[in-house]
Amino acid sequence: MTLTLNSPCDMHLHVRDGAMLANVAPISSAQFAAAVIMPNLLPPILNADDALAYKDRILAITGESFLPLMSLFFSPKLTLQEIRHAKNAGIRLTKLYPQGVTTNSAKGIREILCEENLQIFENLQNEGFILCIHSETNGFVLEREHDFLPILAEIARSFPRLTLVMEHISDARSLEVVQSFPNTFGTITLHHLLFTLDDLLGGALNPHVFCKPCVKLPRDMQALRDVAFSGNPKFCFGSDSAPHLRTHKECSQCGAGVFSAPVALSALAELFENHGALQSLSAFVCENAPKIYHFTPPQKAVQLRKARFDVAEEYGGVVSLFAGKSLSWILCD
Amino acid sequence: MTLTLNSPCDMHLHVRDGAMLANVAPISSAQFAAAVIMPNLLPPILNADDALAYKDRILAITGESFLPLMSLFFSPKLTLQEIRHAKNAGIRLTKLYPQGVTTNSAKGIREILCEENLQIFENLQNEGFILCIHSETNGFVLEREHDFLPILAEIARSFPRLTLVMEHISDARSLEVVQSFPNTFGTITLHHLLFTLDDLLGGALNPHVFCKPCVKLPRDMQALRDVAFSGNPKFCFGSDSAPHLRTHKECSQCGAGVFSAPVALSALAELFENHGALQSLSAFVCENAPKIYHFTPPQKAVQLRKARFDVAEEYGGVVSLFAGKSLSWILCD
Repeated sequence: MTLTLNSPCDMHLHVRDGAMLANVAPISSAQFAAAVIMPNLLPPILNADDALAYKDRILAITGESFLPLMSLFFSPKLTLQEIRHAKNAGIRLTKLYPQGVTTNSAKGIREILCEENLQIFENLQNEGFILCIHSETNGFVLEREHDFLPILAEIARSFPRLTLVMEHISDARSLEVVQSFPNTFGTITLHHLLFTLDDLLGGALNPHVFCKPCVKLPRDMQALRDVAFSGNPKFCFGSDSAPHLRTHKECSQCGAGVFSAPVALSALAELFENHGALQSLSAFVCENAPKIYHFTPPQKAVQLRKARFDVAEEYGGVVSLFAGKSLSWILCD
Repeated sequence: MTLTLNSPCDMHLHVRDGAMLANVAPISSAQFAAAVIMPNLLPPILNADDALAYKDRILAITGESFLPLMSLFFSPKLTLQEIRHAKNAGIRLTKLYPQGVTTNSAKGIREILCEENLQIFENLQNEGFILCIHSETNGFVLEREHDFLPILAEIARSFPRLTLVMEHISDARSLEVVQSFPNTFGTITLHHLLFTLDDLLGGALNPHVFCKPCVKLPRDMQALRDVAFSGNPKFCFGSDSAPHLRTHKECSQCGAGVFSAPVALSALAELFENHGALQSLSAFVCENAPKIYHFTPPQKAVQLRKARFDVAEEYGGVVSLFAGKSLSWILCD
């Protein structure tokens, strides 16, 4: 049995830079026609020139058949001039990180709704940008996403023509809010569809399923599955695949991030199939994103075959989700 | 400034065996007059003969001024004859582990309230034993302790002359149940008084504060502090200090257990002092336990001095709580 996905897209992807970029980018470009590239390098990608240079480094590795949708790290430096410059360069995404909420977010925003930012939101709206948000506060870890919802709602109400994407939704209570505004959408990761706190710390502690926002309760996972398995057009796939070297995960202060790129489509196919939802996989991973983000991915028919996929123990020093285990769908060469 | 504690007791302690026993037992015997020794070795301590041999190995390291209160691993093999044999040998504690809930509990009990166990509870009651319980189910990790409460209540009601100790209480909802029966009591660890999930996974993931039951919500920590800081006679200190080699904590499947023995009294003194509760420390760590367990610890005046205590990075390959940090109370030589 084979399954063909037409131009699947990963709308939230970390490919890093340098040697790690060379290690992980081909893994994603083998499966996806396009991906939203996160800008939280060190230093972050703050402007169009840096984004274009980064794009070139990515394309040098993946080849031109892969479309990296570049995003700018939201900062006070995002002037109207810079926004227009970016727009002219084909960039239409900016990613807002509250300060300190995740990997490489030290330069993120402390006060989201300050006057200065409202002006930037206004400019983004006027220039047709999309604002992608890591929607967490600095509160108690299980409530951070929920505590952020009033901020998201405030931006959605104040800028009704600005498309907002709530990234890597982890909390059931977010789904309602995203569905209540015409201009809000959400990405959902593989790991938030697969896991709860039980998988992170219910048995032995597993740093390889540790991420921000953290996986949550069974009812949260179930609610995320419900919208994904129904092909709900407000939500699309964004892996948030984030490579960390094994030494940075298996230590005393383990970095946040799940490396799911090698298994993304295989594990999604298995999960959707196991829950009788294979017919909705294409909406979730192919069709919804182009409608939400108003873009056309390159033509790319990706085939999966129902056959055993033995996941490698490591990919260049990085431990993948399901490392050393096997999945039931494998990417055709 | 000095603080003198008269015969402090650690009513829940893992000292392991062999080289690890030699490594960690002196750390506890330097601070405590007595400690309840957990029986979950591999293989577990199932009978009095093994417990007495284990006690001898402990005393060979700590010297006779330390009282190890030995416990038997609760199993179907705990016959009336064995209970009486243990009683004659001065053993009055048994520890019940539900199967698979924590380190070395594979031989634990699957169905707590089966006929066979009810007969053992009856025998324990008649012989004046104390039943210490790791009170968790195999359900969702944040609800395991709460889900166990009906089982605890059922045993407490059915065997009103059997003293029950709910070990390492982590959930605010348990405190009410323990206080509602005359024959139920609880131990509370240092780490459950100090930490919430924020400390485990709110920043980087920290395997050294990973334990079973896991640390929980701010309201749980606060409720535990309330009973400890008030000197409530239903509760006493049990560190649950559990040494794992660093290599077994900083890996892909981190073992559950916090090694707090080196800092136990210092960190308790600092915590109680910081919350204006220093006057209750003696009830929590010295006075309550002898009344709950009906025993007399050896005379031992332990002095702490208000001075900087630099915690070592490692104790024989084991990472302590506050490793590499400093505390404000130090044990006097």
